[in-house]
Parts: sequence; structure tokens; C-alpha cells
Amino acid sequence: MNFDFLVLGTGSATPVVNRHPSAFLLSIENESFLIDCGEGTQYRLLEQKIKSSRIRHIFISHLHGDHYFGLVGLLSSWSMNQRKEDLTIFAPRGLDEILTAQFKHSDTRLHYKINFVETDTENVYHLLETNLVTVETIPLHHRIPCCGFLFRSKACKRKIVAENLPANFPIPYLKMLKDGLDIYDELSGITYKNEDYTIAGGTSKSFAYCSDTAYNELKINQLQNVDGIYHEATFTDSELKRAEQTNHSTARQAAMIAQQTNAKQLIIGHYSSRYKTLDSHLIEAKEVFENTFLAEEGKSYKI
Amino acid sequence: MNFDFLVLGTGSATPVVNRHPSAFLLSIENESFLIDCGEGTQYRLLEQKIKSSRIRHIFISHLHGDHYFGLVGLLSSWSMNQRKEDLTIFAPRGLDEILTAQFKHSDTRLHYKINFVETDTENVYHLLETNLVTVETIPLHHRIPCCGFLFRSKACKRKIVAENLPANFPIPYLKMLKDGLDIYDELSGITYKNEDYTIAGGTSKSFAYCSDTAYNELKINQLQNVDGIYHEATFTDSELKRAEQTNHSTARQAAMIAQQTNAKQLIIGHYSSRYKTLDSHLIEAKEVFENTFLAEEGKSYKI
Repeated sequence: MNFDFLVLGTGSATPVVNRHPSAFLLSIENESFLIDCGEGTQYRLLEQKIKSSRIRHIFISHLHGDHYFGLVGLLSSWSMNQRKEDLTIFAPRGLDEILTAQFKHSDTRLHYKINFVETDTENVYHLLETNLVTVETIPLHHRIPCCGFLFRSKACKRKIVAENLPANFPIPYLKMLKDGLDIYDELSGITYKNEDYTIAGGTSKSFAYCSDTAYNELKINQLQNVDGIYHEATFTDSELKRAEQTNHSTARQAAMIAQQTNAKQLIIGHYSSRYKTLDSHLIEAKEVFENTFLAEEGKSYKI
Repeated sequence: MNFDFLVLGTGSATPVVNRHPSAFLLSIENESFLIDCGEGTQYRLLEQKIKSSRIRHIFISHLHGDHYFGLVGLLSSWSMNQRKEDLTIFAPRGLDEILTAQFKHSDTRLHYKINFVETDTENVYHLLETNLVTVETIPLHHRIPCCGFLFRSKACKRKIVAENLPANFPIPYLKMLKDGLDIYDELSGITYKNEDYTIAGGTSKSFAYCSDTAYNELKINQLQNVDGIYHEATFTDSELKRAEQTNHSTARQAAMIAQQTNAKQLIIGHYSSRYKTLDSHLIEAKEVFENTFLAEEGKSYKI
């Protein structure tokens, strides 16, 4: 099962040339989930040749501008490009008020339907279930209401080995094989043993998105054994005080969360504009959690 | 007198890679005026190394997103960067409602004062007078309330030729010389003839910004003999019908306005995403008005 995390923006609130604000695309098989949508995200999606129709769900962690100022432009452009697919946006209270005011004054009538779902940023809250995934909130600790998102893909059904099937194998039996069942065919008296005709499907995977947040261990239980975690690392240890004052994390703190949740890999990002290079972020995080990667714009990470 | 028009965005509503939405910086001596502010404008200003403190006035033509979606990000970033200078924003009704909702939900308190001035988009209306310029609206014809802006720099005072002045020349006389006066000094009985100590200052210049608009001759009287005109040219003649339907102009129509106003130069922009190259725009406009230039991002045009 494909489970890829594409980084579109690695910056934080203060803009710098060559680093864009937060935006990420999590793709699980043929479903893509846009997570945060800083200014210019629609241009990053264009550069990456991502089709609008692939994205049916957008998750906004909180209403600081570097996490959503690109949303209204994206939604407007999708409408101009004749998008028809319904869209669901998960965000804290206020986003629909902001967007509605903007569409009103520009006399914009979207060509598709938006369903706004207000997130509960204080509690673990089930948000979504599709054929492939479930998503729940991760309460985070920031200056305004903010939550992360925990994605869990479902275990895949067993996969048919087509070349092992007899000719004229009854179609209705295929679903039963995918579900892992043996089949007894009354007409012929033959038993089809599942293991002869299928192999295991993919296993369930999980991925946690945690931005923006002060260091906080409350989420550690919820995220136990997560396969991948993106955690903000706005600062390094040398700016620990500033991290505490602004409710952000250091690279070391992000790594501590990954270590304590027994995560398989950690991706850090949301770098403060004060850092021209990111070596110190990586060194600091790896001291605590070896399998750490720096988020790089345009790069996709396999979870 | 420096009078420069810096192009930051040449695109129109539908985004394309390598073309940004409308934003322009008109600089007259040490005053800079930001005209329209599409998504990402703050990054364009960073790339051009434009200091926030130079910009005290922002002019928004209308509330279609490609002309203002970058504003909230820019204003937020200026605050984070500790801007202190007051700012005046001229825009149609609605912008303050939109910005206020955004600042409320992000719990943003700006470190500088914004003065909103609602534009009269139906009539020629005097907006601003500074030491160097006056600005008035240009009523335009678009799908929602929209106006352009006519900037007129004031004629410069005469310039002192320092090396011609006698030693110990009384300071109060300098202002009189700049004002073009001859001076009779009663104490010494000497007459200082202005022409011996000064040369002419710069002449007044004018510049008209016209985007977005259907072809409309109503503004021709107002813009007579303008030194420079930026006029949208979303389409070429081959899409004349579409231009009419969407209340936009073709390159030929932009040139007709320049010709009929007896402008000295025309800059065209706001190109539809359907045009990969712009040769046809330029050829078409030059057939009507020879001194036409294509707006190019990052390029500054002397008026």
C-alpha cells in the first residue's frame, strides 16, 4: 500500500525566500489528504502536478496564517477550473466565517460543495473514515486552538494471485478470497483453499501530524507505535526559552516525542526563519532519535 | 525625479507556474505605493529586497482574490517583523471585514496602525495627497466594484546649485530660491537673481493603473496626456467575446485606451493562463500604440 508524505512547505510564520509556509500532502493509495495550506500552496500543488480531484479532504491544524492563508486561493482556483467533486474541510471554529466573507465580497459561487467540519482541538476526536483510512485529532498545545491529525490506514484485504486461478473461476468467489475465506463449490465438490490463491495484503500503517505545538507528553499514549510522525521543530535547543514562550518545539523535543511514542521514523519541519542551515536541527534530533529526517520541500517520504 | 513601476505579478485569476497574480510597486522618490496584492506578494517583495517601511500606502483595485489574497499574509508578516509605521489601505467595501475576521481568529494584534479608506469606485475621487503625489480613483467597469488609480507627482521645486552660492549665504534665503524667487538683501543691498543660483526641478508626471476592466472609453478624458498607463490585457483579439463576457480587455483595447488618452507609454499585463507566450499580445497592441511594453515580473519601468 502506498503511503507517502509529500512536503510542500517547511517554513514557519516569518517568511523567507526559498522556504514556503506549512502544507503537506499525505497520499494513501488513490486518496490524497491536504494537511495545512499556507500562502502559495496552490502554486506548490501546480509545480508537483497534483490533480485537484485527488483531494477530497483538507485538514487545517489551526488558524495562524502560515497554516491556512493559501486556502481561499486554492478553493477559488479549483472552482475556476471547474472542479465538481465535493470537498470536506476540517478546521477550528472561524474558518467558515473567514471564507464566507471572502466569497461574498468577490461574488464567488463555487462549482462544488464544501462541507465544513469544526475540529475539537481539546480532545481525541474521530474525524473521518473512508474505505482506506480513519483520521482522528491529536490535541496540541499552542497559543490558539490547534490540533494535529492521526491517520491510520486499514489493513488491506488479501491479494488474488491471478495466474493460480482456474479458468472460468466464478467472479463472486473473488471477494470471498480477498476476505481470506476458503471456498467450497457445491457444484463441483471442489474446495478452494485461500492460501493457494491469495497472498497477504498490506498491513495497517499510521502517521501523526503534529504542528504547531509546545513540547507536551500528553499525546504519547495516543501515538504509541506510530509508523511515521511529522513533528514541528521550529527551534533548536539554543532557543529553548523562545520555544517555550511561543509554544513551539525544539528539534530535540520533537525527537523525544518520537522516541517515547516508539515511532518508526520522524520528519521535522516548520523551521524558524532565523536558521539559514538545518544541520544543527538534524544533529540534535538524531542524538535522541536516530531515524530522523529533515523535511525538504518537494520531497516525498515513504511511511 | 525617480518614478518607477515595478511589476511583481503578471498573471490573472487562474494560477499558472511561473506567473504570479497582480501586484505592483510604484516608487516616486522615496515613497513607494503597493498596488494590488495577489497571493504571494510578500515573497515577491522579499525577493526584490523591498523594505516594509518604504510602503505607507496600499491600493487594492477590487476584491477578486488575484488582487488581494496576499494582503493578510503581508500585513501579518510586517507585524511579526516589528513594523511600526502607520499604513493606509485604500480598497472597496468589505476588505476590513475580511481582515478583521482573520486577525480575530488568529489572535493577531498588529504592532502598527492601519487606516482603512473605502474607495468610491463609481466616481473620480481624490484619495490622497502627500508631499510628492496626489492620487485619485479611476472608475473601471468590472464584475464587482473596481477602480484604478491615477498618480500625479507634483512638479519639483527648483534645485540649488551649491557651488554658485556665496560663502555664508543666509539659510532662510535657500527656501525662497527653491520656490523660484529672486532675493533682495537689504543689509548688503545685493539682489540674488534666482536663475544664477538654481536650475529647474523635475516636471510633474502622471501614471494610471487600470486593472481589471472591460474596454470602456469613459476614462479617456480623465487620463489625457498621462505619462504612463498600465492597462490589463487579459486576452487578445481572438478571445474578444470572452473578454466581453468576463469584463476584461484585449491587448488591442488596452492600446486603444493608450492611443486615445495620448499616453506616452503603455504597459500591459494580467495575462490569461491560456497564453503560454505573449508575442501576440505585443504585436496586437503595437499595431495601435507603438510604445507598448509587456509587463515582466521583477522588471522596473521608468515612467
